[in-house]
Amino acid sequence: MVEEIPDFYVIIVEPKYGGNIGAIARLMANFDFKKLYFVNPCEFDDECYSRAMHAHSLIDNSKIFFSFKEAVKKMDYLVATSSIESKNAKRHLRNALSLEDFSDKIFEIDGKIGLIFGREDYGLFNEEIAMCDTLIRIPSSDRYPSFNLSHAVALVLYSIYIKKQSGTLEKRNIGKTEKQKLYNFFHQLLDEINYPVHKKENTEIMFKRLMGRAIPSKWEYHTLMGVFSKALEKIKNKKKN
Amino acid sequence: MVEEIPDFYVIIVEPKYGGNIGAIARLMANFDFKKLYFVNPCEFDDECYSRAMHAHSLIDNSKIFFSFKEAVKKMDYLVATSSIESKNAKRHLRNALSLEDFSDKIFEIDGKIGLIFGREDYGLFNEEIAMCDTLIRIPSSDRYPSFNLSHAVALVLYSIYIKKQSGTLEKRNIGKTEKQKLYNFFHQLLDEINYPVHKKENTEIMFKRLMGRAIPSKWEYHTLMGVFSKALEKIKNKKKN
Repeated sequence: MVEEIPDFYVIIVEPKYGGNIGAIARLMANFDFKKLYFVNPCEFDDECYSRAMHAHSLIDNSKIFFSFKEAVKKMDYLVATSSIESKNAKRHLRNALSLEDFSDKIFEIDGKIGLIFGREDYGLFNEEIAMCDTLIRIPSSDRYPSFNLSHAVALVLYSIYIKKQSGTLEKRNIGKTEKQKLYNFFHQLLDEINYPVHKKENTEIMFKRLMGRAIPSKWEYHTLMGVFSKALEKIKNKKKN
Repeated sequence: MVEEIPDFYVIIVEPKYGGNIGAIARLMANFDFKKLYFVNPCEFDDECYSRAMHAHSLIDNSKIFFSFKEAVKKMDYLVATSSIESKNAKRHLRNALSLEDFSDKIFEIDGKIGLIFGREDYGLFNEEIAMCDTLIRIPSSDRYPSFNLSHAVALVLYSIYIKKQSGTLEKRNIGKTEKQKLYNFFHQLLDEINYPVHKKENTEIMFKRLMGRAIPSKWEYHTLMGVFSKALEKIKNKKKN
């Protein structure tokens, strides 16, 4: 049973306030999350440990990385959160999944899942969001959409926790390698149809988000790959003729 | 429609830290709650206003009472929360409603609803809980069930907010006609690549399901149609050459 629950990693990118780190550790203990990663965090000060309450061990066992890339290297599925103040997230937001829809689907995913939260002031940078498989948006007022970092973490962990409680879902979905192959095929397809270079990146992100939301099963993956490879073959062969 | 939404009052009993008050005001703005009551609060200090961000007016328009009884006098339905550290709540907990079940039902209630949150250290007293119509419990780890005050508020307001939203969801996704066009394009693509006839139907259903889960936005739809039409054009033109 436990093995079927995906492996969640809470990854905090460049937090500035020890108090927030402590609050996040406490929340992780509240909701049974164990793995805490940081990218270039501030000092773990007294405020940090005092706000962590009984969750000191989460901080002591956390891992520190010096780059975003390094921190997410071993993850199979990356989830960016945009609820925190972030101008950067805006252009990606139209593709965002609502927190509720996300937590309905997340248990279908296999492997290590990185839940990524950005800086208190700038959120996540565009290139960080672009590396993620999906972007989630916490439903909120249009006038005041921006959450304090630890409150954003509270809401995301809570939403996952209650879905986890309500039952465990079967896994039958594609993994990291297969996902990468699918994205590569789409990339090749854009090349072959001479897709406008300036639109390419956004279109690839669009495809990633779409698949991130749809979460293809292995069977769907193989079928889709079949269609793509036939289409590519067709275009390439025609070229040769 | 608006009149049917119950009238919520966030009532904070004897908060000790201005920072918590500010964080609560910000969260209320995040989730469109307007009415804030206090029973004997601490001073509204700089920390309070700085954490409130753009939600100062909620604090300035809040009402202060000198007793619990006075604060809840005009309420029609009182909801106690027990998630914050509270030895007192323990004996009531077996009768508590989970937050999820509570927010499923709360919109059926008519009149002024008081959402009551207790002290940072002692929570609500027994006699206060006893005066309430219901007690709610935020699902959490058995080992670390106690939340920071503002995080408890975040979770309760969020849970109510998303239930309220799910009644009135905006549509920015593609409609029936657009969906049909997308499926037609995929159908044509299968034709053009001479996809095995006996597999066609299943593959089309697969695509439909995948899109059904991903729920493309209008922008994603147009981007995807762009890629498909270019791929089709390419294949067709090659045929002609």
